[in-house]
Amino acid sequence: MLMKGDCFQTEYAYMVTFMLTTCLPLMKALSMVCAIEIYEKPKLDNPVLIEGLPGIGFVANIVTLHLIHELKVTRFAEIHSSAFQDLAVTTETGGTRSPINELYYFKSDTGGRDLILWYGNTQALTTFGQYELCEKILDMAQEFGCRQIITLGGFKQDEVKPIPQIYSAATDIDTLNETLSLGAKIMVGQIFGVAGLLVGLSKLRGIKGFSLLVETQGTFPDANAARHVLTVLNKFLNLRVDLSKLDVAAEETKKILESFGLLRSVTEEKKKEEQQFRWFI
Amino acid sequence: MLMKGDCFQTEYAYMVTFMLTTCLPLMKALSMVCAIEIYEKPKLDNPVLIEGLPGIGFVANIVTLHLIHELKVTRFAEIHSSAFQDLAVTTETGGTRSPINELYYFKSDTGGRDLILWYGNTQALTTFGQYELCEKILDMAQEFGCRQIITLGGFKQDEVKPIPQIYSAATDIDTLNETLSLGAKIMVGQIFGVAGLLVGLSKLRGIKGFSLLVETQGTFPDANAARHVLTVLNKFLNLRVDLSKLDVAAEETKKILESFGLLRSVTEEKKKEEQQFRWFI
Amino acid sequence: MLMKGDCFQTEYAYMVTFMLTTCLPLMKALSMVCAIEIYEKPKLDNPVLIEGLPGIGFVANIVTLHLIHELKVTRFAEIHSSAFQDLAVTTETGGTRSPINELYYFKSDTGGRDLILWYGNTQALTTFGQYELCEKILDMAQEFGCRQIITLGGFKQDEVKPIPQIYSAATDIDTLNETLSLGAKIMVGQIFGVAGLLVGLSKLRGIKGFSLLVETQGTFPDANAARHVLTVLNKFLNLRVDLSKLDVAAEETKKILESFGLLRSVTEEKKKEEQQFRWFI
Amino acid sequence: MLMKGDCFQTEYAYMVTFMLTTCLPLMKALSMVCAIEIYEKPKLDNPVLIEGLPGIGFVANIVTLHLIHELKVTRFAEIHSSAFQDLAVTTETGGTRSPINELYYFKSDTGGRDLILWYGNTQALTTFGQYELCEKILDMAQEFGCRQIITLGGFKQDEVKPIPQIYSAATDIDTLNETLSLGAKIMVGQIFGVAGLLVGLSKLRGIKGFSLLVETQGTFPDANAARHVLTVLNKFLNLRVDLSKLDVAAEETKKILESFGLLRSVTEEKKKEEQQFRWFI
Repeated sequence: MLMKGDCFQTEYAYMVTFMLTTCLPLMKALSMVCAIEIYEKPKLDNPVLIEGLPGIGFVANIVTLHLIHELKVTRFAEIHSSAFQDLAVTTETGGTRSPINELYYFKSDTGGRDLILWYGNTQALTTFGQYELCEKILDMAQEFGCRQIITLGGFKQDEVKPIPQIYSAATDIDTLNETLSLGAKIMVGQIFGVAGLLVGLSKLRGIKGFSLLVETQGTFPDANAARHVLTVLNKFLNLRVDLSKLDVAAEETKKILESFGLLRSVTEEKKKEEQQFRWFI
Repeated sequence: MLMKGDCFQTEYAYMVTFMLTTCLPLMKALSMVCAIEIYEKPKLDNPVLIEGLPGIGFVANIVTLHLIHELKVTRFAEIHSSAFQDLAVTTETGGTRSPINELYYFKSDTGGRDLILWYGNTQALTTFGQYELCEKILDMAQEFGCRQIITLGGFKQDEVKPIPQIYSAATDIDTLNETLSLGAKIMVGQIFGVAGLLVGLSKLRGIKGFSLLVETQGTFPDANAARHVLTVLNKFLNLRVDLSKLDVAAEETKKILESFGLLRSVTEEKKKEEQQFRWFI
Repeated sequence: MLMKGDCFQTEYAYMVTFMLTTCLPLMKALSMVCAIEIYEKPKLDNPVLIEGLPGIGFVANIVTLHLIHELKVTRFAEIHSSAFQDLAVTTETGGTRSPINELYYFKSDTGGRDLILWYGNTQALTTFGQYELCEKILDMAQEFGCRQIITLGGFKQDEVKPIPQIYSAATDIDTLNETLSLGAKIMVGQIFGVAGLLVGLSKLRGIKGFSLLVETQGTFPDANAARHVLTVLNKFLNLRVDLSKLDVAAEETKKILESFGLLRSVTEEKKKEEQQFRWFI
Repeated sequence: MLMKGDCFQTEYAYMVTFMLTTCLPLMKALSMVCAIEIYEKPKLDNPVLIEGLPGIGFVANIVTLHLIHELKVTRFAEIHSSAFQDLAVTTETGGTRSPINELYYFKSDTGGRDLILWYGNTQALTTFGQYELCEKILDMAQEFGCRQIITLGGFKQDEVKPIPQIYSAATDIDTLNETLSLGAKIMVGQIFGVAGLLVGLSKLRGIKGFSLLVETQGTFPDANAARHVLTVLNKFLNLRVDLSKLDVAAEETKKILESFGLLRSVTEEKKKEEQQFRWFI
């Protein structure tokens, strides 16, 4: 019927109505899967994206939080995803905290590299959510000129020496050699979650990068492991981040993670199982 | 080929056909994820949204059902989601009841606050479903002028005193202080499901609100816990809801939840496991 | 840039390109969730939709297959869903059979009701898939004039008498009374899967219907239970379907279900667990 | 308001903006589910698609890798899916490898059939992902003229004779007879994963094909089983692939699968369970 072509104006009006009444609400509904709010579009000079989400030994989380504490950073974006947990946690002052990822930028005025810091209190719960999260962050990072990424993580070991070994895997041989020259050894094994996924997806886009993994027992927020990663990052990025207050970041990380139930003692395990029922009694 | 620009009219007709034959059916198919039917668009004065879905101790469920019984409310919307269970339950009279969420409004004529009551016999089964449910309800609540939300829930304890303690967590310090002045203590812990999620998502939209949690053993519909929550709500919302028939709501809640298999004795646990196969034998 | 309005023709061409290169492939990709192929659009007179998917005791499956055998039916649509299992099963002659749902129509020439038979060798594996399946079937049934549905199923009992009791639950009191007058009792309990979901979703659309459930031990394709359901259907639909060859349908149902692994002896349970790994070793 | 029709130009501009700002980003976001990159569009003569993903005994994987080694093939497409695992694995030289599927083509110049080889280090983790993967590959294969497919796999047996039996199931009787004439027996049972799904989905499109399954214990990359499958393929496709270096492909397959954690000794099982937590400690 609309194909008769007898009245262009009418057909046109019809389509506009269709777009606004049918498409728009649907688009809006669907778009909640992974929603990004950008407060500011920073002008950065060839920034490096550093991933710092919770993972093995919470090394990435502590390192990034410490960089946020020590560098003059600005939060410019926050990300929510319906693949995050469906809960809120309480703060000590009666406030609430939600599962969230955030982006901070750092503009260097001392000759070091500009940075985009990807911080958060959770990763996504599904592989679909993980891929989407990484893709969206990479879209944004590229929009701000990023051509290099670093992911951080722990390499789980039953026993760890006082000076833990650092391992790396890279998108290309030149990047790898740079990390080896800083004392890293070649990583052998799997890199789980965003730390691994981001390296793979970056490679597909022609973005260079590497994953830096440090030996850790992995069962608690490991400040010592984080210290050694930060030492390497200081050299690689030409930063001079002071490490004396690293315990503050480690302690804060511990509290946040405990509040989200991501960190718990063995005696709490049983209680945790009950919580899986969530709202079923 | 369509890019040649040789015939605007034809191209246009083509696109309209495409929209109607390809987009529209797809949109329709996709839009069933969370479908809302609105019967009436009420004109409300600065209403408070109260969340009352099944959860720990079923406190929110009992409280909201009692408000529906006692106040002159009107059902104005119902919500279905493909993240609800795929079953029907039977009523005593041979009818069927489906997993559903509903919205009721209350227009106060005695100086109290107007209310939107969010009642239902289920939450969504996936985090994606939970986020979508909350987002859609908040969209609607905002459309009707809502700028404040209250979520209700139980705080699971092994032992509960005759007068159970009430806890709260809020989006902001002013709201928190209001709840503390009514006898609530600061909540410490996680708030699972919609009760927690809604507070977090509201905060993102600049909607104020709080979660009110009451001590409960959590294993049965707890009328006593509900009574203490209602007492606080009466004060906070300037309502004068009579509490004498609260047991009616508790009993009805018990029956509905039993029919959906959300409430069961330990001896029924084994039988329940079989049901997980659903239609596999 | 496209907003400058300097060249309407160019903007228009741009949008058409966008629709054809970006939207169309995406739409196509997404549309595989639940794909329906319609061979023929039958003209039916107020047809009743009968649901006959595998379920408890496989009663619905046997009944519908028997109707397909005995009535002069025509297959007019098939449905595939990415929420079905990802496998093929082999036939005795070296062919393959996939998870599928089908629609058949029956045009009565003896004064009985026209029928749409919904037959298949599987239900969907996710609640999302189940809702989508039901919605699509209802869309189609309504297009062909359907205003009444019947779902069939087993009601699991540890012990069953030679003449098993039949139970019903309906969308409305008139429909219920009709089923009660045929000897059914009021159903008490949950109706799992499509048999329950379809009744609920029909009610939402103003389609009348009922679920007919028969006592069965539920662990094998129960021809006796199917016989009693067919007797009721014969009366209700004014059909005169001969029941003497019912065992043929029961035996065929048994074989199909065994080939899909939906039916198995206890001794096969262990083997089945291995299969859950599918292609992992 | 946009329906007033007072300003066509304005409405039009509005819609273009809407498409570009709302639809485009959403489409892009959604399109990551299963992303295909095509490097080259080969001109092939009636090519046969051979599926070679990891499965029981890793037979398909070894066979296809060996064909890639021995034939003059060109990689022309790669496929990533958010239904693949969210990790990266490391190579011996410090590089990273992601979950991926790839397509290679072989143009025969000796009278044999042209081939499209579907190789990869993983299948999808969800049935939705599996269906989408198969549909996309079939779309592409048909674009390049493919009208026949072969899927490969292992048929798990507790004990296997030195010369393992080969079984087949086909889309049609002619194809089946061809395979039987090469020594295959009729397959009885289920064909899991892509090997089964692809045959079913091909049949729906009118593409002929068969699944070739070989007896294997299934717990390690079975070079002997692969050898017998290749012997049949050599005859069927009029190839003269040398089998002397088959152990190279088997060994490489073993290493890749170990790196992805798809292959492991019993003693590693416990460790594997820990890994399921991925980034939770």
